[in-house]
Amino acid sequence: MSKIALVGLGLVGRAWAVSFARAGHEVAIWDERPESIDDALGFVNRVLPDLDAHDLLRGEPPLSVRSRMRRAGSLEEALDGASHVQENTPEDVEAKRRVFAELDRLADPEAVLASSTSAILPSAFSRGLKGCGRCLVAHPINPPYLVPSVEIVPAPWTDPDAVRRTADLLEAAGHAPIVMTREIDGFVVNRLQGALLEEAFRLVGDGFASAEDVDVAIREGLALRWSFMGPFETIDLNAPGGVRDYAERYQRIYERIFPSTQRRVDWSGPAMDAVEAERRTRLPAERLAERAAWRDRRLMALAAHKKKAGEEIGE
Amino acid sequence: MSKIALVGLGLVGRAWAVSFARAGHEVAIWDERPESIDDALGFVNRVLPDLDAHDLLRGEPPLSVRSRMRRAGSLEEALDGASHVQENTPEDVEAKRRVFAELDRLADPEAVLASSTSAILPSAFSRGLKGCGRCLVAHPINPPYLVPSVEIVPAPWTDPDAVRRTADLLEAAGHAPIVMTREIDGFVVNRLQGALLEEAFRLVGDGFASAEDVDVAIREGLALRWSFMGPFETIDLNAPGGVRDYAERYQRIYERIFPSTQRRVDWSGPAMDAVEAERRTRLPAERLAERAAWRDRRLMALAAHKKKAGEEIGE
Repeated sequence: MSKIALVGLGLVGRAWAVSFARAGHEVAIWDERPESIDDALGFVNRVLPDLDAHDLLRGEPPLSVRSRMRRAGSLEEALDGASHVQENTPEDVEAKRRVFAELDRLADPEAVLASSTSAILPSAFSRGLKGCGRCLVAHPINPPYLVPSVEIVPAPWTDPDAVRRTADLLEAAGHAPIVMTREIDGFVVNRLQGALLEEAFRLVGDGFASAEDVDVAIREGLALRWSFMGPFETIDLNAPGGVRDYAERYQRIYERIFPSTQRRVDWSGPAMDAVEAERRTRLPAERLAERAAWRDRRLMALAAHKKKAGEEIGE
Repeated sequence: MSKIALVGLGLVGRAWAVSFARAGHEVAIWDERPESIDDALGFVNRVLPDLDAHDLLRGEPPLSVRSRMRRAGSLEEALDGASHVQENTPEDVEAKRRVFAELDRLADPEAVLASSTSAILPSAFSRGLKGCGRCLVAHPINPPYLVPSVEIVPAPWTDPDAVRRTADLLEAAGHAPIVMTREIDGFVVNRLQGALLEEAFRLVGDGFASAEDVDVAIREGLALRWSFMGPFETIDLNAPGGVRDYAERYQRIYERIFPSTQRRVDWSGPAMDAVEAERRTRLPAERLAERAAWRDRRLMALAAHKKKAGEEIGE
């Protein structure tokens, strides 16, 4: 097992702590603000028993997992001996440049330096660094201890060995790495999410459907198969001859739709007025946090279900 | 309970038979080809015990559900006394026009005439009919006995009462109706699916990701939350201040992506070559049917999980 250093302990950093410690790694945690570390450890102490109750700790007692997390007294101490550094500071490109320059200066020469950023290209924060070849993005979907997918995105100068080591580390920790060949805005996950949301906002803005209609179409419809197959396997099984047969039968439907999708919707404009009014009627703002806790319980139950279904029904 | 007439007993029609009979309705089934009815009933006899094993038959024995399905000797007999007619013939607009003209002539004057079409606008097959006001689309995602979402799409002349009665019928049968205000190519479901697939084919075609990367991004990532919340509730809970806060924080990411999505990909061209080569390596063509059976078992297990999680964790 390796030593992992987590730099920045907000929502994403604390979730990585659970994921890496569960996988058996020593996890050193560091944040400029000591109270962020307190909050993170408080969170970890609450979530580990929940994961155990859903059989999502590989059979190890919560305290044993917890014992592999160490609060570091300084950034240097956190980095000392770490083979993988996961950075989770706020999404600001100038700040990330400064952080990565410092990480590159202080970390072991062999360590991989990974950012959790969802929006900043790896080239933007690693350009010109002496160790630019070991810098990359490893972008999780929160929380990574329940959502396996992680995007690994190299800059043009990232060493393929750093990519491979990161993918191996994550895969062994139960993650499902998506290894991109090169960087692009939005990576894979947010490009797919953005394409769907863009059409969703357009349908609501043009008055064809409500926000709830869109949510029903996905949560009581498309996302059921997507949640265990993904969209390509879904269409591969939706025509007798597989995915090409599907495209030959149905592509003309999508061709007809395409021209009407070539128009950006302002997500903060009238479409948002409609979506927000509807959402706040269904869920008042003061209940957002309570609903987020419900979401986490549902996500945990779903992770437990998928694990069991994968074992019983086979893959 | 009502009498439902199913006209056309292919994959979609036979699945509707299960859904409507489970809800307590008398279901008259009719197809021009008697062997289609035999196949459909054979399928029903196999699937009902599976549904019972997953506690998805409302506690009623399979034989009791089955006893409400009747093979009609003629179209007239199927329609006699039916208050809802669900048409499931092949996706050909001329054929649908002929079928709907006949249904309109033969069905009880009060009956709603609904098509399961995924691709034909309701105005295209109901224009000019005496009973055009009772014609609409009720498009399920297959199989409707496991996937609750159904799109109800009116033509410009559809009577709002026909829409309301169809929504009530489906909701009482455990469906989640999406009631569109007016027709548009692709309705809601295929427009959302098309937007996602278009970006997926573009990412593969441009060499940024493999088809499996896309499937992992969705099945091990985005679709987990989508499968019980939908995309709008997902982003509503992804920023402290709700959906508007989310758009204000992250819309600029999606704005940057948008221009690069304004280009159609030929789903049958080089992008398909890549997707198909990959899919056929993972799953040879001769195992497609076996995998579709696996998908149906997973879908059934997921439906059972969602029912249980909804009850235990609350909604």
